[in-house]
Amino acid sequence: MALDKISFIDEVAMTLGIIGLGLMGGSLALAVKERGLFNRVAGYNRSEESLFFALKTGMIDEALALEELIKSCDLIVAALPVQSIVSLLPKLAAAKKSAFFTDLGSTKVAIVNAIPSEIRKRFVAAHPMAGTEYSGAKSAFAALYKERIAVLCDTEENSPEALECVGGMFTGVGMRTVTMRSSDHDHHAAFISHLPHAISYALANSVLSQEDKKSILTLAAGGFRDMSRIAKSPSAVWIDIFTQNKQALLPALEVFEREFSMAKKLVKEERWKELGEWMQRANTLHKIFTPQ
Amino acid sequence: MALDKISFIDEVAMTLGIIGLGLMGGSLALAVKERGLFNRVAGYNRSEESLFFALKTGMIDEALALEELIKSCDLIVAALPVQSIVSLLPKLAAAKKSAFFTDLGSTKVAIVNAIPSEIRKRFVAAHPMAGTEYSGAKSAFAALYKERIAVLCDTEENSPEALECVGGMFTGVGMRTVTMRSSDHDHHAAFISHLPHAISYALANSVLSQEDKKSILTLAAGGFRDMSRIAKSPSAVWIDIFTQNKQALLPALEVFEREFSMAKKLVKEERWKELGEWMQRANTLHKIFTPQ
Repeated sequence: MALDKISFIDEVAMTLGIIGLGLMGGSLALAVKERGLFNRVAGYNRSEESLFFALKTGMIDEALALEELIKSCDLIVAALPVQSIVSLLPKLAAAKKSAFFTDLGSTKVAIVNAIPSEIRKRFVAAHPMAGTEYSGAKSAFAALYKERIAVLCDTEENSPEALECVGGMFTGVGMRTVTMRSSDHDHHAAFISHLPHAISYALANSVLSQEDKKSILTLAAGGFRDMSRIAKSPSAVWIDIFTQNKQALLPALEVFEREFSMAKKLVKEERWKELGEWMQRANTLHKIFTPQ
Repeated sequence: MALDKISFIDEVAMTLGIIGLGLMGGSLALAVKERGLFNRVAGYNRSEESLFFALKTGMIDEALALEELIKSCDLIVAALPVQSIVSLLPKLAAAKKSAFFTDLGSTKVAIVNAIPSEIRKRFVAAHPMAGTEYSGAKSAFAALYKERIAVLCDTEENSPEALECVGGMFTGVGMRTVTMRSSDHDHHAAFISHLPHAISYALANSVLSQEDKKSILTLAAGGFRDMSRIAKSPSAVWIDIFTQNKQALLPALEVFEREFSMAKKLVKEERWKELGEWMQRANTLHKIFTPQ
């Protein structure tokens, strides 16, 4: 099925409801409004300060109570930390029978398993591969999703209309959609996203544990800057992700731990030739990976 | 002593001789020529192809044999992998008695210890904190050093004239100089530069070890891109650095290994509260570290 049209959204005057107006939800609101994809954008946020900010700055057209948003919107997006998405899911069964749903969560198996059966066909589980180390409505920006990939999971469970609506929203904000099983997603995301966060936190804590940390940081150049950037990512978001994706994350952490400890052993034992070969193997990553 | 003047270089019509025209040496040549800091820039490179490229593109004014460069230049810069710098050092004793010297190596203790005594006062051991993951003359660019830090080590061993000349060159290309003991430099550099390289290589090899590596890489976003960038760094350069800085690098690798393994243990044992506190500790890095 072609997911690269937004005809469904075009034909029906739809109201989008975004639950959670942080970096992810707020940026989605800005992006759909910039492109004029929906008739109206409603939002809910637990913190009233962010909700007021979103309303005041035109990020959303309307601030609604959670129950009101669920009852009245045509496409509902759960843009919350992943544990909060799981808690929210039962409440979505109160939506209109014609409503569609998606989420922006970084894990998929736990979320897919918690979707109420009565809305399963209409809920397209998604993970847009985009983000920054910042959080909150004020860090949102319209271009966040542009030219990035939206992963749609277990889509064989979905109705064609749900796929067209949700897929159309993501392509409408400039994304490319790919489909995969939620278990594959969680394995891949563990390596490509969750493991790098664990590494960045560990690198930051390694430097912070040193007495002369300020002198060390004086010398920071591009490499350290890049590698410690995502150590700024909020623990409230990431502890949820690590909790939900434990099953796929733990093996990824173990693979990295083995690679790193082996390198350390080669340094300790001065096995430079083997260490050089290990570095050369790492160099080959960029033969199969061209960063966007 | 003020290192922020280039009066010494200004007053004397000096020839700069750069040994090694890769990313570091080539970029220095481009930068000093752009600023007109020297009367003439001579270069030597083992590979004739790079030497010809440097001459043809005007990166250097003159290509010289190594012995000729050493005998004729007023300021000689060793811009080689660090083991090659140590091998080169005895040959520098054949230079003019008025010549000054510096190097651009990422380690300092091993280099400082190998400087011939007859040129010790005139050799300012330096590490400009700048670089990219690329190598070779063609990757050189004039702005590499701009607004970065040049670390000058054990400067109490140097004559004021040598410091003025070498410091003047680095400030002349837009750098800020700081001075420290070579042993402190090697400790700091282990944490801020050498450890991040080991991590990036290990992350790249972790993904490469997976059967479905291409599917994994499809999902790569900013975090992974940033963290795997320096895994492209050439092993020929980095094996030398790891070899020379083993003494400071090994403890840094061990600190990181402990941090990472502890995080893995917290995931394994589902000790989420402690893991969240560990993430929050990492977040505080950016209270004392504002990336440039």
